[in-house]
Amino acid sequence: MEFRPMSDAASSAPRVALLATLDTKSAEAQYVAQQLASRGVRPVIVDMSLRGESPDIADVPRSALMARGATSATGDDRTGAMETTATAARGLLSEWLADGAVDGALGIGGGTGGWMSNRAFESLPFGFPKLVVTTVVKSTGEDDILLLPSVVDVAGTNALLRTVLRNAAGAMAGMVQSVAETTEPRPAIAMTMFGVTTAGGDVARAALEAAGYDVVVFHATGAGGRTMERLTREGRFAGILDWTTTELVQNIAGGLCDAGESRLSAATEAGIPQVVVPGAIDVINVMPPIPDAFAARAHHWHLPTVPLIRSTAEESTRVGRWVAERLAASPAPAAVMIPAKGYSSLDVEGGPFADPDADTAFEEAVREHAPDAVSVTTVPAHINDPDFAREAAQRLLSLIDAANAAPTPKE
Amino acid sequence: MEFRPMSDAASSAPRVALLATLDTKSAEAQYVAQQLASRGVRPVIVDMSLRGESPDIADVPRSALMARGATSATGDDRTGAMETTATAARGLLSEWLADGAVDGALGIGGGTGGWMSNRAFESLPFGFPKLVVTTVVKSTGEDDILLLPSVVDVAGTNALLRTVLRNAAGAMAGMVQSVAETTEPRPAIAMTMFGVTTAGGDVARAALEAAGYDVVVFHATGAGGRTMERLTREGRFAGILDWTTTELVQNIAGGLCDAGESRLSAATEAGIPQVVVPGAIDVINVMPPIPDAFAARAHHWHLPTVPLIRSTAEESTRVGRWVAERLAASPAPAAVMIPAKGYSSLDVEGGPFADPDADTAFEEAVREHAPDAVSVTTVPAHINDPDFAREAAQRLLSLIDAANAAPTPKE
Repeated sequence: MEFRPMSDAASSAPRVALLATLDTKSAEAQYVAQQLASRGVRPVIVDMSLRGESPDIADVPRSALMARGATSATGDDRTGAMETTATAARGLLSEWLADGAVDGALGIGGGTGGWMSNRAFESLPFGFPKLVVTTVVKSTGEDDILLLPSVVDVAGTNALLRTVLRNAAGAMAGMVQSVAETTEPRPAIAMTMFGVTTAGGDVARAALEAAGYDVVVFHATGAGGRTMERLTREGRFAGILDWTTTELVQNIAGGLCDAGESRLSAATEAGIPQVVVPGAIDVINVMPPIPDAFAARAHHWHLPTVPLIRSTAEESTRVGRWVAERLAASPAPAAVMIPAKGYSSLDVEGGPFADPDADTAFEEAVREHAPDAVSVTTVPAHINDPDFAREAAQRLLSLIDAANAAPTPKE
Repeated sequence: MEFRPMSDAASSAPRVALLATLDTKSAEAQYVAQQLASRGVRPVIVDMSLRGESPDIADVPRSALMARGATSATGDDRTGAMETTATAARGLLSEWLADGAVDGALGIGGGTGGWMSNRAFESLPFGFPKLVVTTVVKSTGEDDILLLPSVVDVAGTNALLRTVLRNAAGAMAGMVQSVAETTEPRPAIAMTMFGVTTAGGDVARAALEAAGYDVVVFHATGAGGRTMERLTREGRFAGILDWTTTELVQNIAGGLCDAGESRLSAATEAGIPQVVVPGAIDVINVMPPIPDAFAARAHHWHLPTVPLIRSTAEESTRVGRWVAERLAASPAPAAVMIPAKGYSSLDVEGGPFADPDADTAFEEAVREHAPDAVSVTTVPAHINDPDFAREAAQRLLSLIDAANAAPTPKE
């Protein structure tokens, strides 16, 4: 039977999953386990070795991960085995977490073990303590995984490496022994922003905060939108004011701030109210110099190293359809708010990206494809006008109130 | 008078320097300070704001950093002020550390504050607990700074950010409250290795370990050599077996694994014995495709993405002189051990980098420039021959014994 840390629920000690490739890091893992235990934390050792039999110190031997799909390295090809082993470990950790059977996760390794730990941890919930000691430090900044560069090789148990491992064990123990917050958190609303939509966004944010909400701002950089959507799926937000949907047009046109095709699906999946604004859908970020494909378009140098390209009416149409179709599927109230006088500080009368036809193309596409359940409102204002911002914030607050008042839908 | 945390030495609580730009992150810093205090850790708040007056919560206000050279941001130009402020904070922390007045350092910030904290921490000693919460996660892997991606903006005190900051405070508290190691560490020897010198290096390493030393291996990647030298200056090693000095030729020829011109100076500065071997000085790493400048030379594809270039006799001469001149300045015993049959697994009879003339050029330059005090030994063996490796290890052990037996030089 597969080991489960719940089996000694009698103990109240916090439990930490300790991931390592025991075929090469057995002594190192044992040292960390001892360090955790000396701080009152119970280690649960998971062996991520890519071949061979696990030693006795493994609470979860390689065979248990293989039963979950982990494969063995063959010859010099380790990539496939690394992927399947990390996925198996992630599945195990997710189940333990759902059972409340583990309070933190700590991985140690070089290029191989560090990569697998990172991979196994990256989809674990925000806030769950996770730490990787590794020689190869890489982070997209989208996950709250603590990274500790080992500086020296994770090999042997010399005094330098022991110092690093002791700090790692101390940090993990400190996190899992953390005092829970005593004050009840306020409900949170997520917002997306960009430099060119901030003036209005700050007004909307203040209005939401005044109504009793925490507002969490994400920069629409691609990574920002992805992170917002992941946290939305984790149930962190009461609603979304998607003020800056430039990531949609950047996906369509090949811009840098691309959050992928799944953008604008999380609120619908999580069943929470959302208000969508076409903020900065006039803007496409590219690397300098300006690519030939965009040479004929209007452009603007935001910084000496940051050229911006004007999107076209055809692209705006596709964004409008994208918005309408995603919102059509929402079980919770959803609305589109359109500032008719421009979508960014560049897209304003006399500005470098002024293009009423392109803006209208968005509105027409939204109205063509949105069902009646999705309210579409055009306001004769610019996105950065305070009145528009307050109206958008108020709309979201109304949708949240309506959702809270509505009877729970039947299964 | 400048604030010093020693002023209440009566308290036995561990002290943590907390760095932030209080003009924008005052509430966030206060939250972290409360979280530290609730865990029995005393925070010492250092204000790294780039302009304005510090609020009362600053234990070290901006004026104190300005007295140490911090400048103010002018207009949009923040770069200079960031550099001087980080340097001032680093000086302060170094002094506190020397006085035993601080047990850890924690920085929080976005792009600006995170960068400054990293900068202030990067020269603090290995093992001293240091953690940065930041939106921009970058690490060369050369410093043991724990990095916690904030995922959300470090702005406001919403529940998500509080979760991140609570984990940061918990991790820092766990590190500074760490139990000291009870077993006496073994003395350590540093070694440099490369794939093409590992076969012999592993034999030397085993011989050193059998003699009672911890061996800490650094890969001669540029970063590896720099890290070894930094830790050498911190006094971490009893001796150096500089088995793989390819970083010297890579500096001369413009290779990727360049550790800078100060390479091979740390053991001399620290006054510890060293044995230097010309391991892999036949090898220059370049990015593919092979640059025109090297087109006429012998090359070898180590991996499909890693081309290696053969160094020339002229470059070997320069490496030899570099080695001889640095060792000539050493107050401690120093030796050069030359494996006459080749310097890497490629530089071997019949191998792709076999070039006896280039190898001899190294030896001649060393012998020409080394003073009598530096022993130079040529062994009729290849670097990866076990006998050569054992002889090199034995030579270092003898030098360490001689250094320990020698009377302390008069001041």
